[in-house]
Amino acid sequence: MLVLNPSYIVSMNENIGVIKDGFVGIEKGIITYLSKKKPPQYEELIPLPGRVLLPGFINTHTHVAMTLLRGLKDDVDLQTWLMKYILPLEKLLKPKDVYYGALYGIAEMIKNGITMFMDMYYHEIEVARAVADARIRAVLTYGSADVFFNVSPEEEFKKAEKFREDLLSFVVSKNLKNFIFFAYGPHSPYGCTKELLQIIREAASKHRARIHIHLSETEKEVKEFLKTYRMTPIEYLETLKFLRNDVMAAHVVWATDKDIKILSRRGVHVLHNPTSNLKLASGIAPIPKLLSSKVNVALATDGPASNNRLDMWKEITLAALIHKGVLKDPEVIPAKIALKMATANGAKALGLEDRLGSIEIGKFADFILIDIKKALESTPFHDIHSMLVYALDSRYIESVWIHGKPVYSQEEGFLTINVERLRDKIEDIRARLLSEAK
Amino acid sequence: MLVLNPSYIVSMNENIGVIKDGFVGIEKGIITYLSKKKPPQYEELIPLPGRVLLPGFINTHTHVAMTLLRGLKDDVDLQTWLMKYILPLEKLLKPKDVYYGALYGIAEMIKNGITMFMDMYYHEIEVARAVADARIRAVLTYGSADVFFNVSPEEEFKKAEKFREDLLSFVVSKNLKNFIFFAYGPHSPYGCTKELLQIIREAASKHRARIHIHLSETEKEVKEFLKTYRMTPIEYLETLKFLRNDVMAAHVVWATDKDIKILSRRGVHVLHNPTSNLKLASGIAPIPKLLSSKVNVALATDGPASNNRLDMWKEITLAALIHKGVLKDPEVIPAKIALKMATANGAKALGLEDRLGSIEIGKFADFILIDIKKALESTPFHDIHSMLVYALDSRYIESVWIHGKPVYSQEEGFLTINVERLRDKIEDIRARLLSEAK
Repeated sequence: MLVLNPSYIVSMNENIGVIKDGFVGIEKGIITYLSKKKPPQYEELIPLPGRVLLPGFINTHTHVAMTLLRGLKDDVDLQTWLMKYILPLEKLLKPKDVYYGALYGIAEMIKNGITMFMDMYYHEIEVARAVADARIRAVLTYGSADVFFNVSPEEEFKKAEKFREDLLSFVVSKNLKNFIFFAYGPHSPYGCTKELLQIIREAASKHRARIHIHLSETEKEVKEFLKTYRMTPIEYLETLKFLRNDVMAAHVVWATDKDIKILSRRGVHVLHNPTSNLKLASGIAPIPKLLSSKVNVALATDGPASNNRLDMWKEITLAALIHKGVLKDPEVIPAKIALKMATANGAKALGLEDRLGSIEIGKFADFILIDIKKALESTPFHDIHSMLVYALDSRYIESVWIHGKPVYSQEEGFLTINVERLRDKIEDIRARLLSEAK
Repeated sequence: MLVLNPSYIVSMNENIGVIKDGFVGIEKGIITYLSKKKPPQYEELIPLPGRVLLPGFINTHTHVAMTLLRGLKDDVDLQTWLMKYILPLEKLLKPKDVYYGALYGIAEMIKNGITMFMDMYYHEIEVARAVADARIRAVLTYGSADVFFNVSPEEEFKKAEKFREDLLSFVVSKNLKNFIFFAYGPHSPYGCTKELLQIIREAASKHRARIHIHLSETEKEVKEFLKTYRMTPIEYLETLKFLRNDVMAAHVVWATDKDIKILSRRGVHVLHNPTSNLKLASGIAPIPKLLSSKVNVALATDGPASNNRLDMWKEITLAALIHKGVLKDPEVIPAKIALKMATANGAKALGLEDRLGSIEIGKFADFILIDIKKALESTPFHDIHSMLVYALDSRYIESVWIHGKPVYSQEEGFLTINVERLRDKIEDIRARLLSEAK
């Protein structure tokens, strides 16, 4: 057993709380010991004075390969951005481009302490290859959208099924069942026909797979549903019997009070993307209301082209700040809740709360070590959750561990990814895309 | 002449723009050369490939010594925070405590690329000593508040005058006229009597000094003015003939359309504190409206106890994001404007636009060097302003220069401040304050 002895273990489990000068034991990628007392036996013990051990962040909603398109155009409206800048280039993406874009984005995520993410994109099997190479964990979803692609629901569903089968073979052949997970990814209620949504709902239940969907992201989306169906997108999905506790809904900016009751009753998980919602001017999601209605809310970065970072710590701080200002209530989303949204709530959203999201015996040894002494902002010391959320940021992440092994440290850099070679690749792909688009 | 040759000079002057692979020459603390061409003669030339040279950030509103009280209590309302936690400890502060707290906060600011700040606090002459020791620039104001301190306007004004005289002697004796500037600091329209505001207005005009004031920060403040005077705080100051283009008003969260017209007509400068306004649940200032009404808006962190950082870069990103989300308009406060608010607009607010705020011949050589190659987020490269604001952050500041000399570099650390010794001091003071408060 390898034993770590940091100054603070911030477990993110209510019963365990914060352990000062405690011991975390790891065997075969799993946490097998956790106590204030030193274990009687171990192979190696690493003293970590001045370090905080925190569960790895769970980024529940991204399109990671969009690193390729980051910064292409900012400060414009969503329609112009998507139609004029993003979609024309996305059409030119080759599978190998998606691999490189995803691997680059995964490097960014790892450096920022993210040990698990959920993705939705095209050529998603390439994202699986990047996940395997980087040795991160992920839930991968192919973005099904028969409306956008102008194909029949059956044809579009075939692609989803092909991805499912390819992914499962890939996972079996590479022995990655603890690292890569499948979910369905119907893009949104407006990107999919009713038929496709129903086919996917049925298949998800049959295969006990979860469903990842964009939901009520913009006012426009909700207004169009009200016009066409006299229902909000959430009410629409409810009439289709689509909503259950295996549904993970990204954004949910425009949920009405009635919508929130539906989400709560059905146990739908909400994936909150504060930066993206601000930057694309979608609005401010009613997160405090969702939380007080017992909806599980997790955090996410959204894609790197609409953020333009993959830094969960930034989302944690923003989630803790923005709702206070908008609701004029300084008590909503206190520091600890914001941290929980990025860890334990994320695991719950992905249906992996038995394996991830907190420092507990039996869970995967996925965590980050934070060197608080490197930060001037850690002095004076009062409350550890507050210090992490309001005063520090991801620059103080000293190392990132997945399945009991470091994948990144400030001293050694990336241990699974050759970032510099990759950076040149990204610039090459960008140049090719821009020249082909002309 | 020392010449720097970075990959990008982001001048923050509209006519100069961004200079690629250009040359900045420095003599005796002043920028004396700026061109795309190499100067014919120089003493030393430093090639800086992959570096961005940007004007130092100007933090126009803080209470820097409040590092001592950071994290004492978060996630509570302003009244509880101030009355129950902050004020009882502030009463116990000794002058030397303020010196140490200020120096520590200045170290944080320097590391984060801030080369000029404006402060308001008690024992403000101690802040001047810290500014001198750190070799940063500052506008210093004593927070006058006869209402809070329950003294006569005359008595309170005497303290302001004493500070002015002490500061001017200090500046003369230490030869710091390019580094330390005086302004009056009437705390707020509710913290000062009408008499004190009028005395200060008159004195400011007489001494050609500027005025730093908190204004329309909370809804409560505005409501109470409406109840007592049937006027907003801004209308109230207007009737006192208080508002001119030498007034620097912090917050201005609750300005009405009529207020904005007054501020615009009088040329009042607004100091925007996005994080503090969110964290203390004050609300969201109408910044896009102020800008479109031709009000000069600068950026600030507010004090470290209500932020809890002194990181202007964080404020830049937040200012660029939050107004988009709140107004549902992705085009407001584009990246370049957010950067301008932290540099050129800050200099203008402080009345120092001839000396600071942009990279121009004749201005102080106050700037930061950013190592964009260290950031994964700088790839792919499209627009430099957008990259700086949305993708990077202050961790990529490689060195900070004030008056032509480095005061901090990642390699050498702080060149004017012994931070580790200071950190112990801060913890000692905190422990003493908490024990005395019991």
